[in-house]
Amino acid sequence: MDYVYAPGKNHLFVPGPVNIPEPVLRAMNRNNEDYRSPAVPALAKTLLEDVKKIFKSTTGTTFLIPTTGTGAWESALTNTLSPGDRIVSFLIGQFSLLWIDQQQRLNFNVDVVESDWGQGANLDVLESKLATDGGHTIKAICIVHNETATGVTNDLSKVRFLLDKYKHPALLLVDGVSSICALDFRMDEWGVDVALTGSQKALSLPTGLGIICASPKALVASKTSKSVKVFFDWKDYLKFYNLGTYWPYTPSIQLLYGLRAALDLLFEEGLDNVIARHSRLGKATRLAVEAWGLKNCTQKEEWFSDTVTAVLVPSYIDSAEIVRRAWKRYNLSLGLGLNKVAGKVFRIGHLGNLNELQLLGCLAGVEMILKDVGYPVKLGSGVAAASAYLQNNIPLIPSRI
Amino acid sequence: MDYVYAPGKNHLFVPGPVNIPEPVLRAMNRNNEDYRSPAVPALAKTLLEDVKKIFKSTTGTTFLIPTTGTGAWESALTNTLSPGDRIVSFLIGQFSLLWIDQQQRLNFNVDVVESDWGQGANLDVLESKLATDGGHTIKAICIVHNETATGVTNDLSKVRFLLDKYKHPALLLVDGVSSICALDFRMDEWGVDVALTGSQKALSLPTGLGIICASPKALVASKTSKSVKVFFDWKDYLKFYNLGTYWPYTPSIQLLYGLRAALDLLFEEGLDNVIARHSRLGKATRLAVEAWGLKNCTQKEEWFSDTVTAVLVPSYIDSAEIVRRAWKRYNLSLGLGLNKVAGKVFRIGHLGNLNELQLLGCLAGVEMILKDVGYPVKLGSGVAAASAYLQNNIPLIPSRI
Amino acid sequence: MDYVYAPGKNHLFVPGPVNIPEPVLRAMNRNNEDYRSPAVPALAKTLLEDVKKIFKSTTGTTFLIPTTGTGAWESALTNTLSPGDRIVSFLIGQFSLLWIDQQQRLNFNVDVVESDWGQGANLDVLESKLATDGGHTIKAICIVHNETATGVTNDLSKVRFLLDKYKHPALLLVDGVSSICALDFRMDEWGVDVALTGSQKALSLPTGLGIICASPKALVASKTSKSVKVFFDWKDYLKFYNLGTYWPYTPSIQLLYGLRAALDLLFEEGLDNVIARHSRLGKATRLAVEAWGLKNCTQKEEWFSDTVTAVLVPSYIDSAEIVRRAWKRYNLSLGLGLNKVAGKVFRIGHLGNLNELQLLGCLAGVEMILKDVGYPVKLGSGVAAASAYLQNNIPLIPSRI
Amino acid sequence: MDYVYAPGKNHLFVPGPVNIPEPVLRAMNRNNEDYRSPAVPALAKTLLEDVKKIFKSTTGTTFLIPTTGTGAWESALTNTLSPGDRIVSFLIGQFSLLWIDQQQRLNFNVDVVESDWGQGANLDVLESKLATDGGHTIKAICIVHNETATGVTNDLSKVRFLLDKYKHPALLLVDGVSSICALDFRMDEWGVDVALTGSQKALSLPTGLGIICASPKALVASKTSKSVKVFFDWKDYLKFYNLGTYWPYTPSIQLLYGLRAALDLLFEEGLDNVIARHSRLGKATRLAVEAWGLKNCTQKEEWFSDTVTAVLVPSYIDSAEIVRRAWKRYNLSLGLGLNKVAGKVFRIGHLGNLNELQLLGCLAGVEMILKDVGYPVKLGSGVAAASAYLQNNIPLIPSRI
Repeated sequence: MDYVYAPGKNHLFVPGPVNIPEPVLRAMNRNNEDYRSPAVPALAKTLLEDVKKIFKSTTGTTFLIPTTGTGAWESALTNTLSPGDRIVSFLIGQFSLLWIDQQQRLNFNVDVVESDWGQGANLDVLESKLATDGGHTIKAICIVHNETATGVTNDLSKVRFLLDKYKHPALLLVDGVSSICALDFRMDEWGVDVALTGSQKALSLPTGLGIICASPKALVASKTSKSVKVFFDWKDYLKFYNLGTYWPYTPSIQLLYGLRAALDLLFEEGLDNVIARHSRLGKATRLAVEAWGLKNCTQKEEWFSDTVTAVLVPSYIDSAEIVRRAWKRYNLSLGLGLNKVAGKVFRIGHLGNLNELQLLGCLAGVEMILKDVGYPVKLGSGVAAASAYLQNNIPLIPSRI
Repeated sequence: MDYVYAPGKNHLFVPGPVNIPEPVLRAMNRNNEDYRSPAVPALAKTLLEDVKKIFKSTTGTTFLIPTTGTGAWESALTNTLSPGDRIVSFLIGQFSLLWIDQQQRLNFNVDVVESDWGQGANLDVLESKLATDGGHTIKAICIVHNETATGVTNDLSKVRFLLDKYKHPALLLVDGVSSICALDFRMDEWGVDVALTGSQKALSLPTGLGIICASPKALVASKTSKSVKVFFDWKDYLKFYNLGTYWPYTPSIQLLYGLRAALDLLFEEGLDNVIARHSRLGKATRLAVEAWGLKNCTQKEEWFSDTVTAVLVPSYIDSAEIVRRAWKRYNLSLGLGLNKVAGKVFRIGHLGNLNELQLLGCLAGVEMILKDVGYPVKLGSGVAAASAYLQNNIPLIPSRI
Repeated sequence: MDYVYAPGKNHLFVPGPVNIPEPVLRAMNRNNEDYRSPAVPALAKTLLEDVKKIFKSTTGTTFLIPTTGTGAWESALTNTLSPGDRIVSFLIGQFSLLWIDQQQRLNFNVDVVESDWGQGANLDVLESKLATDGGHTIKAICIVHNETATGVTNDLSKVRFLLDKYKHPALLLVDGVSSICALDFRMDEWGVDVALTGSQKALSLPTGLGIICASPKALVASKTSKSVKVFFDWKDYLKFYNLGTYWPYTPSIQLLYGLRAALDLLFEEGLDNVIARHSRLGKATRLAVEAWGLKNCTQKEEWFSDTVTAVLVPSYIDSAEIVRRAWKRYNLSLGLGLNKVAGKVFRIGHLGNLNELQLLGCLAGVEMILKDVGYPVKLGSGVAAASAYLQNNIPLIPSRI
Repeated sequence: MDYVYAPGKNHLFVPGPVNIPEPVLRAMNRNNEDYRSPAVPALAKTLLEDVKKIFKSTTGTTFLIPTTGTGAWESALTNTLSPGDRIVSFLIGQFSLLWIDQQQRLNFNVDVVESDWGQGANLDVLESKLATDGGHTIKAICIVHNETATGVTNDLSKVRFLLDKYKHPALLLVDGVSSICALDFRMDEWGVDVALTGSQKALSLPTGLGIICASPKALVASKTSKSVKVFFDWKDYLKFYNLGTYWPYTPSIQLLYGLRAALDLLFEEGLDNVIARHSRLGKATRLAVEAWGLKNCTQKEEWFSDTVTAVLVPSYIDSAEIVRRAWKRYNLSLGLGLNKVAGKVFRIGHLGNLNELQLLGCLAGVEMILKDVGYPVKLGSGVAAASAYLQNNIPLIPSRI
């Protein structure tokens, strides 16, 4: 099973699944338990409450569904909308594309607003749609906060601004898969109606939990939604919340204890410090890319993502070869370019439980790989640029001062 | 998080989730990995192939979906059937009831064939329905192989016999959640079209994998199914199987390695030996119940389950008090009576990675609890009856001879 | 490496190493750390202080030496005594024999006071020696608190009484390997000068820590001891205690964190509750032995051990065959008879992190094995006798009331 | 217990204890076992045989003693020598100093041959001693293969050459604590009589095993040694080897399984590849030091160590501040300067289960720290120098080609 063994640590820089911290691995290293004993509901209660904090919500209702981000998407859509409902959805990369594909297959009526890959959501088009929708035929805006394929972060506060400007009642459904717990995210302040993430992203757990927060307005919508669903039906959860037993079907005991540990670590570090750390890692990565003389796939600074950087390579290089080589020679896992940008970009994920020296090791590796594949990089240049920034900005570790 | 700490091992005798063997815990004690590297698909390939063996199928196609048994049910139904399709479904306890509820909410047209709780599926009614369905309006038979709530095992070979007798083309969809890997199960021989289980049952893993095997006929049916689904859509899996990357969305790395280890242990013990072990554990438990002077909720020997025993208590005892006391005083986890049999039965799960002395410890505990709650049991009587049988039937451990 | 795989849990009933609780396994599941960072000394400081509690000492100085019980013995002797010093030492079984062998090989002058195996230390002989030693030629009394080979617990308070009666200044050195954390042990009250145990015994950790507590008087003696030693020299530890770095050589990071977790569990349960639990387990085991019609190797009730029971078998049975069969057929690990009692006794260890149902599973197993080897036991009899006692005496689990 | 929590991995670059690979952590994540069952001796047998390979010995006898390197030293000395025996021993740094201190406290008659810290053993003095010792009063040469405090590797083949040249029968006792499994070591070829290491060094395990290999000549010497010892006495081991039970006292079950996994990983990588990897890591580190304009504590290239580099800092910098800052700001663990070089050097350990990108992350960190403490380093310079070498020399990972 470890037939691809290589000495030393695997350097995991895909934008998910990400590195799991040791305390979380420890917390999950346990036998199963009876989930109907008093212990598991007591634990669940703390989780459902505390997990709201990662959304910055006090009014939301949370769901921990044994599924992935794809299932969390489906849960968000099928609980709040009915077949045929009109949705405005932004296509800006592979993950927004997949979500739109799901929206269409679930029989919603999707206004696809497309941007070039590397650009953010076109909010001008949104504005014109809202401005002309006096009849409120648009039932929901679906937007990916951070498009993992291109490293683009959308401005959610502006979406809320537009909805408010036109007093439009559409629901705001947000994929926060590669943003929540890493980027600034404000569920209540931005009036997000459903936000969701997956456990294997910035929460730094294994895959297996779709984590969803629904606003009071989303819960109201869920009462009249006509979409067919059972496994993803929030009503089943709410029924068991009322009973105090919490689970309509068997949860993963290990992930519940893992989530407890992951939240404890996040709160110990402080959510704002976590976000600041991601900001440092993102900035440092972009400085390295610049020093290498390469372009960021993200076309404007306003969209730069602090969780993943998609790096454009010159046309004479196949970016997939960079990823293969990283794995085969340096025990480094980088993200492939997907779909439209396949072969053109490779991606450095810098999210989750990660620190600066880990990133610098990765950047040093990328430099060697670039040289391997014939790009005339100056070795050390990216590391130097990143270090110069980091050395001025890394704070002391609070617990060690 | 361990605020309910008690010394010694928890004696886990709910019918799922069950005890995880140490080698499986070890295999899962690992960091995340890039699931797009060559390693994970190579592992996935062996898993998809080897997992067929637990179904005794060579012709089936397997799916490892990040979900629970409830999701696996939904996957089986929505991939093979279309809304409005007529199903014959047997209501014999809480889990068949929940599946029927799902079938109805998914807009299938369900002929519910109800039995008393404690009886098996009424196959006479099935025969009469098949006999009168010359027009083949029945599209599927849905049956729970082993009803976990009442400890009833249905005779699947007879279902196949009836379908063949009437040359009826209905699909045979089987919930094997508390049977597969523990009871005799023969996918191909019995002409089962979809069979499914969950990782936390007899496979002895954490919750998180819905494990499905689909016959060639089921795959054909899936091409024309009009049920709306995305997350559970087999087509997405088949597309990635063809690409050789296997996963339409992120799998749990830990569960994949855990499944590898679990299968290795099953094959090392030998699937038939595993089944024989469950047969011993079931028989021993029933002998104890008899010795205690209590009745089995299962009304006839032909339906006795070798994975779970539901024990009826006298009317002056609340079975829930037995379960509470087991946990509060003896660190023993027993199963509650559910729904119609709430307060009337408690359940001893004896499935998964479990041996005879573990069971005898449980039985000794149950005896003390029965006395605690005022039932005049003769201490040692159940253990004696079980031991007398086991002492004659336990084989030597092959690896230690 | 798991080529001796058997399904289910191994039932570990040797008198050490014993079962490790899951929270301790979790605590030890970690990478190495720099033991010169501020973190490890901070941890060490709490350990050295808290570990005194298991000795019931406030005045002692503790040492956590990376060694086994045998090394802890050597440490106790060579730090407090000089070659040629006269020791009174009690030979009552295999472990006292091995300690005496060590005492002799270390060139001490040992008065061996022998008892039949199955009897306690002959304190009458001690009294006569003390009475006639007005010149105080006896420098130390060495006594095993609980002889693991025969299940004999000596009365240490009486040893102290005799020393006081004759105002004798001899040091009192105690092997508490199979007693401390399980039996009533009172370092300060009984005037014990050096007490020691090993991590793999009642503390329920892996092997690897020799845990020693030295009285102020022992520390004074250590200043003039002429025994040659380096690795076991307390002076090196004391030097590093003063420096605040604590370790003269590299400790096991994993065992330090494991010890922290083990102590936390002990204190959560309450040391007196832990001792009461062992008392229950010991009593229950003896009642089972009696019900089987077998004799306890321990010849008088005053010496009965609550951590291990050595069971005499009839002369027509080889007790080693019982142990072999336990392992080969029932996945049960029992203790062999050692040396003089080889073939005559088998041992049931009932110490450490263990609960009542685990013990009852073991006892049920022993009954079947006795039958396997031709002893006419009534199946269930021992379990019944043990249960009858336990059902009246097991308290509710405090954290679950 | 994790009160010094910092996000991301700890970068562990002390020269021991070192990073434990995940497969080894997994192998150790287990309950205790009866070490007298057939399983543990079967495992022990493979370990004692396979561990010879890390010494490149076929004729040696190996011992796995539950102790540390300090205990392994004591075992080597007390089993082969008698009090008063004349030893030639080389003082070249803190660890050779500590070993000499032990030799003296164990009452051997030590000719201390001192070198400046940063130089290797003065073999000219050895030659003159051997040349004038026609009477063979020198019973042993004690030499540290790799002095961890100064990063100096001694030339053992030359020691053997000199002994052979003068046909001198002195035993050759070698501390290979920071060399074996990392540097070229040839027990049989170099006629080493006792070689030893500790589990927490290049074997990449937790602390707890002193690993010793004794030549046939050393075993002969052990028969007449008059040193007092019990715990460290090889005779007790040899007695149990003959019995086939292997252990005179309780081993750590976890470390045995861990050692099995560690050896499997070493053999999978190939011992020569492991050594080549250390050579790359050492060379890369030295190139970085040079690029930073700093001096290596090791005074000549012939003594350069591939497992640890001691870096001299300018006199206006306190090297301890570098180590403190590494831990407090960068979650990086570096080695302090010890004794004579305290405050003057910091050490980068580059041994054990470590790869190139991990090292580059460390070097990038050191650069930032150097800047933090006021040294005018050019950020990126060391990484560039190391990368330029590594990019030309890292092989493809064999299992991934």
